[in-house]
Amino acid sequence: MERFDGVRLPKAALEEFAAALLRGAGASPESAAATARAMTDASSRGVDTHGVRLVPFYLDQLQNRRMNVAPDVTVTRTAPACVVVDAGGGLGHLASYRAIDEAAALAEESGIAAAAVTNSTHHGATGVYALEAARRGFIAIGCTHADALVVPHGGIKPFFGTNPISFAAPAPGEEPVLLDMATSAIPLNRVHLRRDTGTKLPPEVAVGDDGVMTTDAHVATGLIPVGGLAYGYKGAGLAMMVEILCAALTGMPHGFRMTKFTGPGQPVTIGHFFLLLKPQAFDAGGYAATMAAILGDLRSQPAQAGQEVMAPGDPEKREAASRAALGVPLDRRTWGRLVEFAGTVGVAVPEATAEASVDGGGSAA
Amino acid sequence: MERFDGVRLPKAALEEFAAALLRGAGASPESAAATARAMTDASSRGVDTHGVRLVPFYLDQLQNRRMNVAPDVTVTRTAPACVVVDAGGGLGHLASYRAIDEAAALAEESGIAAAAVTNSTHHGATGVYALEAARRGFIAIGCTHADALVVPHGGIKPFFGTNPISFAAPAPGEEPVLLDMATSAIPLNRVHLRRDTGTKLPPEVAVGDDGVMTTDAHVATGLIPVGGLAYGYKGAGLAMMVEILCAALTGMPHGFRMTKFTGPGQPVTIGHFFLLLKPQAFDAGGYAATMAAILGDLRSQPAQAGQEVMAPGDPEKREAASRAALGVPLDRRTWGRLVEFAGTVGVAVPEATAEASVDGGGSAA
Repeated sequence: MERFDGVRLPKAALEEFAAALLRGAGASPESAAATARAMTDASSRGVDTHGVRLVPFYLDQLQNRRMNVAPDVTVTRTAPACVVVDAGGGLGHLASYRAIDEAAALAEESGIAAAAVTNSTHHGATGVYALEAARRGFIAIGCTHADALVVPHGGIKPFFGTNPISFAAPAPGEEPVLLDMATSAIPLNRVHLRRDTGTKLPPEVAVGDDGVMTTDAHVATGLIPVGGLAYGYKGAGLAMMVEILCAALTGMPHGFRMTKFTGPGQPVTIGHFFLLLKPQAFDAGGYAATMAAILGDLRSQPAQAGQEVMAPGDPEKREAASRAALGVPLDRRTWGRLVEFAGTVGVAVPEATAEASVDGGGSAA
Repeated sequence: MERFDGVRLPKAALEEFAAALLRGAGASPESAAATARAMTDASSRGVDTHGVRLVPFYLDQLQNRRMNVAPDVTVTRTAPACVVVDAGGGLGHLASYRAIDEAAALAEESGIAAAAVTNSTHHGATGVYALEAARRGFIAIGCTHADALVVPHGGIKPFFGTNPISFAAPAPGEEPVLLDMATSAIPLNRVHLRRDTGTKLPPEVAVGDDGVMTTDAHVATGLIPVGGLAYGYKGAGLAMMVEILCAALTGMPHGFRMTKFTGPGQPVTIGHFFLLLKPQAFDAGGYAATMAAILGDLRSQPAQAGQEVMAPGDPEKREAASRAALGVPLDRRTWGRLVEFAGTVGVAVPEATAEASVDGGGSAA
């Protein structure tokens, strides 16, 4: 969690504004709507790093035509319970929602199904799509690879992307449980934030160009896998799993050979992978009761002083309740960029409430 | 890796000896054969913690009838791509191999399939079964839950089991890639080992009864999730995922409510979960080339001084080559117990070569 000066908007207004800006930069209405929906979903739950704060990044990518702005998403059923979704070289959000739709239909029939997304680009927070599937009653695993940023265990130079893994599962009487974690200890934007604030990084999360561990955010160029110096082979192993699912099943280049997301350059094409299963396909009646027992027991565990034992996704559920009441916050710098771009493309700016010291959310970390 | 005094035996002789001892303790021939096969597979790759060293533990469990010694494993196809395997309250190895057989048959048809194992007990190293599936050409994910030993993030008392996750994927021209990791930083038996050797534990891997981090192996009663004090919510989140897949889908009690594996007590019943997918169901021809590229690039990365960048499972591949040539080592204490038990049940002891300072393997950690 971090605090920032900013504004607050109702979720629906923010989503429509984001979609209008993306259309203003050339995105097709369908692609813009899916991207705005995914970003707003993340922002509404406090996942600011992968929320509407990404609009300027996407505007830049769209304007530089580093992607197909009006992708034709196509679907091929490659096996009874498998589907390949071709994102058409566009933003990955539209194709990822489509992958969930298709996998859900197949999992409804077969009990389990998977969708591999190929020829895609950045799709925001991977957990958005797993959560969407779980809201429809499925247990879901989702992952995406990314450009090289994470140093393999024992290595010096970045090789893996932050390669996030998300897991979502329906929970009785509440929003699904959601784990959405980078396989690095921290996400890159935390390094950027520490550069801005001039504060040191925690130990064992980053290395410099020389492969030596550093706490200086200005020196850090590579991230260490979760597990740190001693157990980072676990985080690196999980990153490898994501790389295999997202590259070897989709025909996309792996992170190390991938074009960089940021800066100028050729279009970057990547893959995503989603897997959905229907709890009732295994256990006719017991799922809800066991989930309730696990969650109840976990949340009532004794905690360290000043802490609380929570289930994956619990902090975001609280933040979502607060943001539903108060509006979704956006930092002042991002808001300024959106308003400025709105002026250049003639998009109306929705009403926002200025607020100092917004209690900002976390990250899909 | 650790060094110990011990003996070496050819793999086949060790497997047959282990099976004979399990039969001597009452296990059915089928159950004994599967358990011996799984343990020997682990030992042959250097995973000593989950190898033949477990024989005395299983003998104890069998003799105390903490399980059904002659389980009737039954299979129910619950959906076109889903199967539930009832382990019949016996050792989990037989049911887990059966789960792989069944899921492989369904994944061959549907492209992807899952098997939930219910009413099972300890099944050794989870990675054994994922590896078996990958040897047959499938990408596989396997996991099992276990009795409470790992403290949730921010908590004081153990709640999760070490809840390992395994991932295996076919690799062209070599044994599959295999990640087999506990979601705690270290496995419990490393604590036991440090008690025996009188050495301290690393920082941020264990807590005492008071929930305070300790490096004293004699004080440690709980393990910290991978990620340590700062990022342990990731390890705990993965442990929760395993708990949901292995308990909520199988009707088994979750780790916190489960009977303890060790010591006297009622039979302990647990679940396992396996998921298999066929690479060719997504990408007709590119899988092998992309896997070769990922592995080639990864293994040629620059490394820290004295280290080497390896793929998951690479250390075990080397150890397997060495053990295939020299025989599978077993520590002297375990060997002594096996020989002693063999005497009481009239099992012939195979020829073994005594060896001081065996270069022992690692653990499914």
